[in-house]
Amino acid sequence: MPRLRTVIFNYVSPHGWNKEGLSPVNHLLLLAVAVAVVSQILETEQALYREHATFFTWLEFGVGALFTLDYLTRIWVAAEMPQYQGWWGRLRYALTPVALCDLLASLPFLLYFIFEWVGINDLAVLRLFQAFKLIRAANLGRFSEAARALQHAIRIRGFELLLSLILAILMALLTATCLYWVEGDVQPKAFGSIPRALWWSIETLTTVGYGDVIPVTPLGRLLAGIFAFLGIGIIALPTGILASAFSDALHAKRSTQSTDKNVNSSSS
Amino acid sequence: MPRLRTVIFNYVSPHGWNKEGLSPVNHLLLLAVAVAVVSQILETEQALYREHATFFTWLEFGVGALFTLDYLTRIWVAAEMPQYQGWWGRLRYALTPVALCDLLASLPFLLYFIFEWVGINDLAVLRLFQAFKLIRAANLGRFSEAARALQHAIRIRGFELLLSLILAILMALLTATCLYWVEGDVQPKAFGSIPRALWWSIETLTTVGYGDVIPVTPLGRLLAGIFAFLGIGIIALPTGILASAFSDALHAKRSTQSTDKNVNSSSS
Amino acid sequence: MPRLRTVIFNYVSPHGWNKEGLSPVNHLLLLAVAVAVVSQILETEQALYREHATFFTWLEFGVGALFTLDYLTRIWVAAEMPQYQGWWGRLRYALTPVALCDLLASLPFLLYFIFEWVGINDLAVLRLFQAFKLIRAANLGRFSEAARALQHAIRIRGFELLLSLILAILMALLTATCLYWVEGDVQPKAFGSIPRALWWSIETLTTVGYGDVIPVTPLGRLLAGIFAFLGIGIIALPTGILASAFSDALHAKRSTQSTDKNVNSSSS
Amino acid sequence: MPRLRTVIFNYVSPHGWNKEGLSPVNHLLLLAVAVAVVSQILETEQALYREHATFFTWLEFGVGALFTLDYLTRIWVAAEMPQYQGWWGRLRYALTPVALCDLLASLPFLLYFIFEWVGINDLAVLRLFQAFKLIRAANLGRFSEAARALQHAIRIRGFELLLSLILAILMALLTATCLYWVEGDVQPKAFGSIPRALWWSIETLTTVGYGDVIPVTPLGRLLAGIFAFLGIGIIALPTGILASAFSDALHAKRSTQSTDKNVNSSSS
Repeated sequence: MPRLRTVIFNYVSPHGWNKEGLSPVNHLLLLAVAVAVVSQILETEQALYREHATFFTWLEFGVGALFTLDYLTRIWVAAEMPQYQGWWGRLRYALTPVALCDLLASLPFLLYFIFEWVGINDLAVLRLFQAFKLIRAANLGRFSEAARALQHAIRIRGFELLLSLILAILMALLTATCLYWVEGDVQPKAFGSIPRALWWSIETLTTVGYGDVIPVTPLGRLLAGIFAFLGIGIIALPTGILASAFSDALHAKRSTQSTDKNVNSSSS
Repeated sequence: MPRLRTVIFNYVSPHGWNKEGLSPVNHLLLLAVAVAVVSQILETEQALYREHATFFTWLEFGVGALFTLDYLTRIWVAAEMPQYQGWWGRLRYALTPVALCDLLASLPFLLYFIFEWVGINDLAVLRLFQAFKLIRAANLGRFSEAARALQHAIRIRGFELLLSLILAILMALLTATCLYWVEGDVQPKAFGSIPRALWWSIETLTTVGYGDVIPVTPLGRLLAGIFAFLGIGIIALPTGILASAFSDALHAKRSTQSTDKNVNSSSS
Repeated sequence: MPRLRTVIFNYVSPHGWNKEGLSPVNHLLLLAVAVAVVSQILETEQALYREHATFFTWLEFGVGALFTLDYLTRIWVAAEMPQYQGWWGRLRYALTPVALCDLLASLPFLLYFIFEWVGINDLAVLRLFQAFKLIRAANLGRFSEAARALQHAIRIRGFELLLSLILAILMALLTATCLYWVEGDVQPKAFGSIPRALWWSIETLTTVGYGDVIPVTPLGRLLAGIFAFLGIGIIALPTGILASAFSDALHAKRSTQSTDKNVNSSSS
Repeated sequence: MPRLRTVIFNYVSPHGWNKEGLSPVNHLLLLAVAVAVVSQILETEQALYREHATFFTWLEFGVGALFTLDYLTRIWVAAEMPQYQGWWGRLRYALTPVALCDLLASLPFLLYFIFEWVGINDLAVLRLFQAFKLIRAANLGRFSEAARALQHAIRIRGFELLLSLILAILMALLTATCLYWVEGDVQPKAFGSIPRALWWSIETLTTVGYGDVIPVTPLGRLLAGIFAFLGIGIIALPTGILASAFSDALHAKRSTQSTDKNVNSSSS
């Protein structure tokens, strides 16, 4: 029995797998998560759902069964890790955030018959709970490490990010206030208050420009032109800093990982 | 009495506070400024204001009282600083730009009864005057130093910024002139003069693209396509240079500050 | 005869031409490809095609003849290369991807009379087949080497690209889901399902902002504003990484090439 | 007499002025050019022009007189430069591109009475000719040197720029072709031919997004979403490379200039 458990552990746990990348079992799980996400999205389209209701129900059911099986297997093989041995160890493992995500994602399936009995057989419940499997999936790959590297990079640039964010918000407020003064009387629906004018400000300074709200007075257009010209760079600052922090973090991650790999390969 | 004044000074003045960051009192003040800004913005929405008129009035009153208290306290504890000792010193402190901002922000509250008597109990007055507290708030944190660093960075890149700005303006004028020639007769309202065509130019070259003004002739569309393609980079130049100057200034600031901190910690 | 073949080979093949850049013959071929592309594009405009039908037909015919001549010549002079000597060598050359592209581009012309006889004298066939000449043209210049350098740069940044792509997709899904919840009931046509809301998400986060789909509820606008503000940087990440990989690859290519040139010039 | 000519030369010619920046006379000339440009732009607005016709006419007349005076003065003082001495020298100076620009800008004023007599007293002629003074103005400052530095930077990055331009054009063509296939039958007016679909492509890939042309079929929207997502980076490549070349050139210029200044100050 332990022999089989060890083999399964090596295939299921990211700590057990000693080759590069994910094990085939975890690749399959990622695929199942992707399938679940896509099917959850498509189900919201009523026309599509009604036509293929049976297909979607069985898909949901299958994915739910897979998630539950995955959860139970992980609980079972957790005992392979020295810190989670025995029943108490398994219980401690079941209380880790990752295992709780697994549990929550499996909950709708586990409680299916109770749900049926209570009358909540709405798929929306599945939808919300299966989203936890996304967090789990993120934890499987190197994504959680990347997230940690990103957090670190953001913390280092915290002051810049805060300052540029404040500047961007002030810029948006300033432009909104100006256009509220200039256009407020002419277009009360669009610029009749600063919160309304803010919708125009954000739309313009992010260059989205839907075109539902446009200044019409010559002064309003002049100000809008100048603001569009000058404000775009300021609004783009926080996202630019964030993007560059993200990029730096991934670079650092990559170089660390390649060093790790070299160390591993030289030590083995 | 001086003992209490010293304690209050340490909590109120950024020069008095010897731990990192702002003192709790100044954090509270920043919060009050933020609350004032948000309430000022929301008040402009008539429907919201009418419904919660009492709440907004009391909020304004409270914030006004707080600002006034803050002003008077700062005047009082200014004597803790060697250069502002005595009544003459306090007067000299009261004439510093920062103290004048404090005064202006407190003015509507101080003159409330006179205002009432004259008949200007319009909140718009408060709104304009409380904006000065925003400048004061900026001076509390490290924002003023960041602003100085930014000014420095802009001065260094002055020539680049000027040149790219001129180029961007010429690009906007050129595209506006071309479309005025091509589309002017077909769409006199949108392209009937260069200033009108400029609205299209800025809208397009900043990629805002509201869609209220669109070339319709084949030649106009061809030119618009080429200009959109080539012009975007040129229009983005000044804001790009500004953004990069800002980023550099903050980087420089950060490294200086961390050096300062090291020096401080090693000297203490 | 071999003398003439050698001369033609030197002018036709990129390996035969020992000066910098392309030979005049290949410059002409590139021009013919450009002409073919432009005429193919213009032909789709019915009004223009009907008016100049004869012109377009002769142009197509001429370009087709040129492509066929080019193909036959290249097969003939392939024997100049040591690895493609003799009839078997030519056959082997004819089976290289580049030669097959040449063949496919020439096919409609070669089979013209059969086509006529069968009744498929539709120009759409020409259009599809002549596109293969574009791939051939790309192979003539240094473009194929640039493509290889780009592929290399992308492979190096693979993990970053994948991660940022996943993040961008999750961002799009998250914003779409939120607006589906908030606006779904109010605007069922635009936000009635997540796939529909995704159209808004992509339109907004890429800052295209057509303006056909706009949130109308206050909460929807608030969320849209925040998402537009924060999401743009994240959506721009993969394209930013791709662009920087492309730029790096071209830089590397350039420096390698200038080194090659130096080596060549020093060795000669 | 030569004394006065030397003094005027030192104030008028950029070569004569030995302090940093431009001479007051040239500053005035730049101002006159700016005034001319702004008045030319405003004149195109019929309503404004009719109301202030006299003002604009006198402004044009004044600027024309100033430009003519400037031209004649420059011809006169050209003899101060060793290479343009004597009457033949002045003639040679009059044939330099810069002097020809000066002449063209002064032409409408010089020929005013002939124009009047012929009947072309339209201001549009002035408009076109005075644009040449803009080129002259660019030559006064350090702008011409900056332009040369930019040209140099572009030449170095020529291959990258060409390649990214080709890629961007191919991307635009590819997306236009796809949407022509998918949406051509449903929206013949907007996507009925590749040139028409190109308008959508450029509008979308540059993220301008007017919203006049929007894919409506599900497949069209899916493709549009993917293209918007992937294509933006590729379309932004050439402008990005151009912007960075511009930025590099200005940096290089600045460092060269500051070195020059150091050399000058150390040598003096």
